[in-house]
Parts: sequence; structure tokens; C-alpha cells
Amino acid sequence: MLSTCLENVRASSPLVHSITNYVTVNDVANAILAAGASPIMADEPEDAYEITAICNAININIGTLNSRTIESMFRAGKRASELGHATLLDPVGAGASSLRTNTAVNLMKEIKFDVIRGNASEIKTLALGSGKTHGVDADKADAVNDSNLAFMAGFVKDFARNSGAVVALTGAIDIVAEGGKCYAIRNGRAEMGRITGTGCMLSGIMAAFAAANPGNVLEACAAAVCMMGLAGEIGYSNLQNNEGNATYRNRIIDAIYNMTGEILDRGAKYEIIG
Amino acid sequence: MLSTCLENVRASSPLVHSITNYVTVNDVANAILAAGASPIMADEPEDAYEITAICNAININIGTLNSRTIESMFRAGKRASELGHATLLDPVGAGASSLRTNTAVNLMKEIKFDVIRGNASEIKTLALGSGKTHGVDADKADAVNDSNLAFMAGFVKDFARNSGAVVALTGAIDIVAEGGKCYAIRNGRAEMGRITGTGCMLSGIMAAFAAANPGNVLEACAAAVCMMGLAGEIGYSNLQNNEGNATYRNRIIDAIYNMTGEILDRGAKYEIIG
Amino acid sequence: MLSTCLENVRASSPLVHSITNYVTVNDVANAILAAGASPIMADEPEDAYEITAICNAININIGTLNSRTIESMFRAGKRASELGHATLLDPVGAGASSLRTNTAVNLMKEIKFDVIRGNASEIKTLALGSGKTHGVDADKADAVNDSNLAFMAGFVKDFARNSGAVVALTGAIDIVAEGGKCYAIRNGRAEMGRITGTGCMLSGIMAAFAAANPGNVLEACAAAVCMMGLAGEIGYSNLQNNEGNATYRNRIIDAIYNMTGEILDRGAKYEIIG
Repeated sequence: MLSTCLENVRASSPLVHSITNYVTVNDVANAILAAGASPIMADEPEDAYEITAICNAININIGTLNSRTIESMFRAGKRASELGHATLLDPVGAGASSLRTNTAVNLMKEIKFDVIRGNASEIKTLALGSGKTHGVDADKADAVNDSNLAFMAGFVKDFARNSGAVVALTGAIDIVAEGGKCYAIRNGRAEMGRITGTGCMLSGIMAAFAAANPGNVLEACAAAVCMMGLAGEIGYSNLQNNEGNATYRNRIIDAIYNMTGEILDRGAKYEIIG
Repeated sequence: MLSTCLENVRASSPLVHSITNYVTVNDVANAILAAGASPIMADEPEDAYEITAICNAININIGTLNSRTIESMFRAGKRASELGHATLLDPVGAGASSLRTNTAVNLMKEIKFDVIRGNASEIKTLALGSGKTHGVDADKADAVNDSNLAFMAGFVKDFARNSGAVVALTGAIDIVAEGGKCYAIRNGRAEMGRITGTGCMLSGIMAAFAAANPGNVLEACAAAVCMMGLAGEIGYSNLQNNEGNATYRNRIIDAIYNMTGEILDRGAKYEIIG
Repeated sequence: MLSTCLENVRASSPLVHSITNYVTVNDVANAILAAGASPIMADEPEDAYEITAICNAININIGTLNSRTIESMFRAGKRASELGHATLLDPVGAGASSLRTNTAVNLMKEIKFDVIRGNASEIKTLALGSGKTHGVDADKADAVNDSNLAFMAGFVKDFARNSGAVVALTGAIDIVAEGGKCYAIRNGRAEMGRITGTGCMLSGIMAAFAAANPGNVLEACAAAVCMMGLAGEIGYSNLQNNEGNATYRNRIIDAIYNMTGEILDRGAKYEIIG
């Protein structure tokens, strides 16, 4: 039951360490709080290394990486992995620059990630060494749709098997997979792409879900992805006249805050493939 | 027609690279999205240099500059200029510290900016080497009003001619000028000054407008300035009981999101001087 | 009268320099503006040193400290102190890592702070060299409640006497003390803990209150703490159906924006202990 995954977050309130970009960091923190977990951010290498030890999960997002924060990602990520914390990589903009691509690839080599979440272009870049991008957004040519779903599900499962991580490729249809099993999720709305940070928020939340559901990370990630998309639907339905993307952002986080297990189970739209 | 300038942004969705301050960066990203363009932020020198090449415009904002990001501004700004991208400088706090003043002056020496946008104190600092400031806000003594409008319009046109940029001096009355032509714009509300980042958001949007309207940058900038002020008026009229500056910020971005060419043409309040 | 403290902020509009974390910096800026003061942020050592000289107060928040910003904190903090500006320390996460603890302790050694504001765990760490933490949140074991209020009031007064600062330990019951006098404040709501940055916002506002009320810093700090808690109550009462923590954040800042001296005096819930 997806609801159990959410309820475990609320019950255990994991402390999630995010080394993340400064564009969306505030929304990531409020989204983690809305989900029932606690955020902390540290990105100086010495501090990140020490802070991560008191946490339950690490969320590494390379959105505005620099040499100092990259060092922190490696040091804190390795330590989190050694300590058995939930580890998540969000390869923002992998494929858009060599620094981003190389950093993501090297992080994957040195750290065992439990979860990798990105858009189609980012995941293709990591899996295949190629992939188009439109900056930090996926290229339209990479999108998952009904015609290529079966093929893409196989592709994501392969990448999950090879990387040893649960992989979430998010977009109009989300694919969440481990080697042998795959969720295709149809929650969410296209208008979420007009808000900065919905992917970053989801990654922070997924790290919390993974930490609160050890041994059940695939379902936990599927629950988080369903919840984010469902919050996008609920937040949209709560928009008042004349409201746009800035308020929509708040209404999505608000919908996460007010999410219950019952709402999640009733609203989740997914199928399990293979 | 100002509406055409907006419609060109919506049709081409330019990718705008912002090297900007971390205070208002999230609002800048959402404002760029609201206008119909796409934001990306990178500020590590190597990454900024590479990322800017896949973009259509660069927005350099010195609000919380440091030695690392200054290097990125020079490297990415020069490359953007070489590639023929739209280039914009927002000299936040020029006049308030020597690092800010010198950085803005040196950026102007080494990079050909298409657009420079600042408050009256910042523009005076760049044009005259002097100018009072109240931190990152304009000093009241520098404000444009009906009595000094003709003089200030001439001053901004001179600075535009000398710098080779379209110059936007924004405040209670906005002046947008190139060497031979000048718009005086009266959209906006004083309460916008009680929100952090309305100037930063406008700069991000202006970079998108300049990119989407090559060969017509002056009118594109005037359209962006009118739109921002008009969004301030519409956002204000949408405020509900007990709402204040935090919600007003969202309602302004929302109004940009819901802006149409027709609303813009109908609501723009400007005169062309000389 | 607490109202006089607020009115002095509105009348003098102090310029508050914040060297603060990038997680909540935007909310800090808008909260300072909502209170009637002006924010400015600079964190490059050379720039921070120069910018602080044109300000009236400095707010040092170690939330996402790094070696560069730590240098800025020391340089700008010392200069602000020499210039007689209001100086405030927010030791975010002191006790959670040695870098944070040591930085806070060393800042206190080298800079004479007028105000120190933290949660119970942070203040215990600074006063006693020990204290539990839950990341950047206080450990439940450290909370102030009716049973330990008298003891904790004495403890905070002792720390205030030893440090020479007005000390604010904020939580379910807030204690604001100088050596000989102490306010216990019962404004606020538990739900404020589900928003990131309410403590950071309060610190920015307290720096403004201290600057606008020289010679009356204890009462000014008590007024700021009452106002923040009261804004939390008013913002909560303004929440509409389906709203959650993201919108609540805005409604709190909005309530500060709409706060009047009369509302503050009528809504403040405090007692003076000893």
C-alpha cells in the first residue's frame, strides 16, 4: 500500500540532508517538511561530512554545483552510504555540460545510490552516455509516451539493474523501476513544468520516503512520485481565479502537507509493468 | 506593438542563463517561466562558460557577487556576446561598494551588453561614476519625477549612446532608452518596492524579451518593463484581505503568467520622448 | 510599549545587512521589508566589509556557512560592532557539527553581539558547551515548558549576563532576557515549526528592531518575538481551505506587513519574570 509508505515518513520523520542548488532549495526544504520529514542543508565539505552523520538520508542535487560543493557531495555521499543511509542522486542538467555529466557519472562510480531521479534526458545521459537536453528540462524528443512506454520501461529497468539503484525517470508518464519491476505512473499535470523546482522537491521527498521505508525502496519511491503528481493535480484544482505558477507552487506544497494515506491510495494512478 | 514582443517570447521560449544572486533567484526563475521562457542557472566558471553556449540570452546580476561568480560573469558574458546572444547587466548595488561598482564597470568594458537595467542610483553610478544609494535601493534624491523627467530622459539616452546598450532606469517612472529614442513608462505601484526582487525578476524577463526580439530590442525592453509594472497593478488588484508583500510577490508572477498580448497593449502606459 | 518599538522600525527603516544561509534568505529579505526595514545581503569578505559600513545592523546566521562566508562574518561583524551598529548572531545548527559550534563560539569571542537568538539546543550548546539537536531543530528534551520555565529563565539570564547580549531562546515558550530581566512569551503556534525559516526571519527582524531602538534592546527584542509569534497566529487564522505550510509562510510575512502597534500591543502574550 502506498499509504503505508507515506505514513512511515510521518511516523519516523527522517532527517534529510540535501546538498542542492540555491535556485529551488527553499521549496525543497518546505516540501520535505510538508511530507513529514525534516530538512537540513550543509555544503561546506567538513560540515557536510559531519552533518550527514546525524541524518537518515542524503539528497544530492547537482543543479548549481561548484568545486566546493562537488567535494561535499563526494565526501558526504560516501559517508552516508557507509552509514547505511538512504542515498539519492538528482543529476540536474546532466547532458547540458561536461561538468554536470562528469560529476554525475563519477558520483555514481564512487557512491552506491539507492535512488536516482531525473528527467528523460538526464537519465539517458547517465545510462547511454548521450541524451539531448533543453537546459535543465528534458528535450521533447526524449519524452515518454504511450507508444514508447514499453520500450522505455525496459530501458529504465536495464539502467536500474546496471546501476543497482531504483531509478525514477519523471515526465508526463513517470517510470519508477528496479531491475525486475517497474511502475508507470500517470499522476501530475503539464503545468507543473512551468514551475521551477518540482523535480528537485520530488527528489527531496523521495529521499525521505526511501529512508522511512528500508527494504521497500521501490514502492516507497513509487509512492513519492504518485504523491507529487497527485499534489500537482490537487494543487491545480485549488487554484483560484487569476492565479498562476507562483501560487501553484505553494498550492502543490500545501497539498503535500495535507496529503493523507487515504487520499494517496485513492488518487494514485499507476500500473505495474513486468 | 508591445504585444508582439510578448508573443515572440511565448512562441520561441528562449533559454535564459542567469548568473544572479541567491536572494531572489527562485523568483527570477519563476518569473522567466511565467513570461514563457526557460531559466537555467550556472555559476561555476567552467560550467557557466559551457552552459551559456546552449542558451539564447545571459542575465548577469551582481547582487551577491563573489570572486568565483565574478569570474563566471566575465567568461560566460564574453562567450554569450561572441555567440550573438542577448546580453543583459543588472548592476545591483553599484555605488554601494567598490567591488560592486568596479565589477559592473569592468563588465561593461569587456562585454558588449545589449541591455543594462538598474535603479536610478545604479545607473547614475555607471554613467557618472557617482550616485547615492540606499543599499540595493535607489536613493530618494535620485528618483525620476515629472519635474526632472525631460532631463533624466536625456541623461539615459546619453548613457545609452555611450554604452551602446538599451538602458532601462526603473523606478516610479521608468525610462527605457537607446541613443535616439526613449520610452517613459508609468506602470507599476509603489508597493512593489516592499518586495525583494522585483528588479531582478524584471531583468530576467528583459533578457528573454531581448532574445526573442532581435533587431527590436528597445521596444522589447519597453514591453517587458510595461508588463512588469502592469503585473504589479494587476497583482495588487488581486490581493485579498489581510494579504501583504509575500503574497503580492506571488500575485505579480501569477499576473505575468496570465498576461496576454491584449492585456499588455491595453494596460501599458507609456509615452515616447524624442 | 511594544508598539513603540515597532513604530520606531517603521519610522527609521534601518538597513539590515544579513550574512545568512541560502535556504531561507528570500523569506528573511521579505520579512525584513514587511517589518518596515530594508535588507541587503553581501557575503564576499571584501564586499561584506564595505557594505556593512552603510548599514545600521548586521544579522549573522550560520545556517549554510562556508570558509568564505565565515571570513565575511568575522570581518563584517567586527566592523559593525566597531561602528556601533546593532549586531545579532543566529547560531543555526550549533551543536550539530563542530564547524557550526566552533564558528558560533569564536564569533562570540571576537564580536560583541547585542543579541543572540537560537532554539533551546543551540543556546544550550553556546552556554554550556553541550546540547542535543535534531539537525537545525531543537531536540524535544531541550524544550521550555511550564515545569522548567523558572529554571530556564534563570539559565537564559545567566547566559545573557555572561555574554553581554540580550538572549532570545525561542520555542513553544520564548524566553528573552538580559542579565537582570526576562520576558516569557507565549505567542506563536506549533505549526510554525513545519515551515523552514521562521527562526531566520525572526532574527532578521530582531536585528532591525535592535537598530531602531538603541538603549532599549531588551524590550525591542521582546517586541519582535511577540510580533513574530502573533503573526504566526494571525497568519494561521487567515489560512483558507486546503492551504498548508507553503502558503502559511506567506501569510505570516503578510501578517507582519499588516501589523500595527495597536494589533501588537493587544495580541502580545508575555509576562516579565524577575
